[in-house]
Amino acid sequence: MGALILHGGAGSWRDERVKGEAVRVIEECTRYAWEILGEKDSLSAVVAGVKCMEDSGVLNAGWGSVLDLLGTRSLDAGVMSSDGLIGAVAAVTATKNPILLAMHVAVETPHIIMGGEGADEYARRLNLPPLPPPPQHVWERYRETLSRILKGEASTRYGRELVKYLEANPVLADSLKELVGVGDTVGAVALDDEGRLAAAVSTGGVILKLPGRIGDSPIPGAGFYATSRVACSSTGWGEEIIKAMPCLKLSQLVEETGDLEEALDKLMDYVDSRVGRDTMGLIAVDSEGKIGYRYNTRAMLVAYIDKTGRVVVKF
Amino acid sequence: MGALILHGGAGSWRDERVKGEAVRVIEECTRYAWEILGEKDSLSAVVAGVKCMEDSGVLNAGWGSVLDLLGTRSLDAGVMSSDGLIGAVAAVTATKNPILLAMHVAVETPHIIMGGEGADEYARRLNLPPLPPPPQHVWERYRETLSRILKGEASTRYGRELVKYLEANPVLADSLKELVGVGDTVGAVALDDEGRLAAAVSTGGVILKLPGRIGDSPIPGAGFYATSRVACSSTGWGEEIIKAMPCLKLSQLVEETGDLEEALDKLMDYVDSRVGRDTMGLIAVDSEGKIGYRYNTRAMLVAYIDKTGRVVVKF
Repeated sequence: MGALILHGGAGSWRDERVKGEAVRVIEECTRYAWEILGEKDSLSAVVAGVKCMEDSGVLNAGWGSVLDLLGTRSLDAGVMSSDGLIGAVAAVTATKNPILLAMHVAVETPHIIMGGEGADEYARRLNLPPLPPPPQHVWERYRETLSRILKGEASTRYGRELVKYLEANPVLADSLKELVGVGDTVGAVALDDEGRLAAAVSTGGVILKLPGRIGDSPIPGAGFYATSRVACSSTGWGEEIIKAMPCLKLSQLVEETGDLEEALDKLMDYVDSRVGRDTMGLIAVDSEGKIGYRYNTRAMLVAYIDKTGRVVVKF
Repeated sequence: MGALILHGGAGSWRDERVKGEAVRVIEECTRYAWEILGEKDSLSAVVAGVKCMEDSGVLNAGWGSVLDLLGTRSLDAGVMSSDGLIGAVAAVTATKNPILLAMHVAVETPHIIMGGEGADEYARRLNLPPLPPPPQHVWERYRETLSRILKGEASTRYGRELVKYLEANPVLADSLKELVGVGDTVGAVALDDEGRLAAAVSTGGVILKLPGRIGDSPIPGAGFYATSRVACSSTGWGEEIIKAMPCLKLSQLVEETGDLEEALDKLMDYVDSRVGRDTMGLIAVDSEGKIGYRYNTRAMLVAYIDKTGRVVVKF
C-alpha cells in the first residue's frame, strides 16, 4: 500500500480570507492525488496533487501565486522521483502549472532546470494552460502588504532582513520598510505500491520579492528531493532553505539513522542551528511508507491519508 | 599569506583556435586577482579574477559565452564568502559580467538567486556593462558544432545523452544528433590574510543548450561554495554537478577528514560513483592556504600562485 502527504505552505501568518478555502482545497487535492496513486504511480500522484493546488487559486502556487514588488508574478517548481527523474523551472510566467512544465523538462530535455523566457517559450510550444490574471484576494493581499510596509509596521525575521537590505540598497526606492510572512509553497510526496518515491513542489515565491528572484523550489536538495529511501518537499523562507539544503540533508540523515522520525528530529536541530527558527517546514515519506512532517514556523498546512484511507488535515 | 587558484573550464575538447589565448588569459587574470588579493580581500580577488576571464572573450563566460540551440546566449554566475555572503544569477543576458550582478544580488538584495528578465532589468538599472555580440570564434564553433551534429558525428557522454532525449522529444526538431564537449566554466577561489575564504563562478553554459537552461553555476553547493574551512568552484556537465553537489560535499568531507587532499580524493570517488566519469572538475582552497584541484574529464585549465609568488598554468 502506498503513502501520501501534501502541504499548503508553512508561514507565520495565514490569509484569513482563504484559510477555510485552503483547508477545503488541500483536502480535495489529497483525495484526488490518492486516487491517482491507486491508478498510476507516485510520480503521477505528486504531480496531480500539486497541479490541483496550483489550479485552486487559494494557495501560493500557480494561479494563486503572490505578487512581487512590481505586482507581477514569477513561479518556481520542481519534481523528482527515486528512479532518477529530475526537472525544475525557475522564474516562469507563461503557465498556470509550472509543475507540468517541470515534468516536461525532466522527461523531454537533457537539462534539469530551465528558467525565464526560454522556459516560458517552451511552455507556450507545449500549449500548457496560460496563467490567468491573479484572483481578487491576491491583489488585496498585495495592496495591504504594501500599505503596511509604507506605515513602517514590522513583524517577521524575513521582513526585518529585507528592511536591512533595502535600507542599504541604492537601486530600489527607500519606501519599503517591511515584508510580511515567510513564503508559502505547495508540495507533495508519495510512495507507490512498487516502492517508488516521488516529490513535487510549486510556488509563487515570497510576496513582494524583487522581480526575477528565484527561491529554493527549483533546486534539487533544497525545495525537493527523492532517493530510494526518502522523498522530501520543503516550504518557507527560500533563501534560508537554499543555505540549509534540508531535503538533501534529510536523505543523508535517513541513510545514517535508518529511521525517518529520528532523521526529521536531527534535521530540525540542524536547520535551527544552521539558519535559525521561523524559517521552514517540510513533508517526507520513506520507503517503508512512513510519513512525517516538521516545521519551525508558527503554522503549516498539511494533509495526508491515514491508515483507514481517510484524509487528515492539520493546520 | 593568501592563496589563489583559478580555472578556465574542464572538458573533453578544447577549441584549438583559442587554446594559446586561453593560457595567456588565465595567466593574466591570475596575476591580476593576486594583486587584488594583496590590496583587498579574497572576495574582491575571486570576483576580479572571474570578471577578467568574462571580459577576455576566449573562455566560456561573459563575452566569450557559447551559443545555445537558437544562437542566443544566457549566462549563470555565483559568488560566496566564508562570511556568509551569497549571490547568484541565472539565465541572464543583459550584462557581460554576470559575476558583478551576482555580487549586487548578494550585497543589495534579501535574495540569493535572481534570474531571467527581472535580473536583466536589475543589471540595466545598475548600468553594468552590456553583453557585446559574440566574438568570431564563438560563432564559428556554434556553426561547426551544429554541422557535426547534422552529419551524425558523436563523441561525448553528454552528446549521447542529449541525442537520447532529443530523439524522444516531440517539441524540438529531430535534426539534432549530437553535442560536443562538457560545458566549460570559469572560476576562482581564494584565501586572504585575515583567513576569509571566497569562491566565484561564471559560465555561458553548455553549447547548444535549450534556451533558458540553467546549470549548476548559480546553485550554492553545486557550482560554488565557501565555508570557514574551504572554498570550492566547479566546472563541467551542469546537470550531473547539480545531482552530485560536489562543493557542498567537499565542505562536509573537509569537516570530516580535516585534510583537503584526502577530502578531494574522497570527493572524486563519490562523484565517479554518483554520476560517473567525464563529468566535472573543481578547484579548492582551505583555511590553511592549501590549494587543490581535481577533474575526471580529459582536460582542465588551471592556474595558481606558487610559493615563490609565480603564476603556474596547468592544461
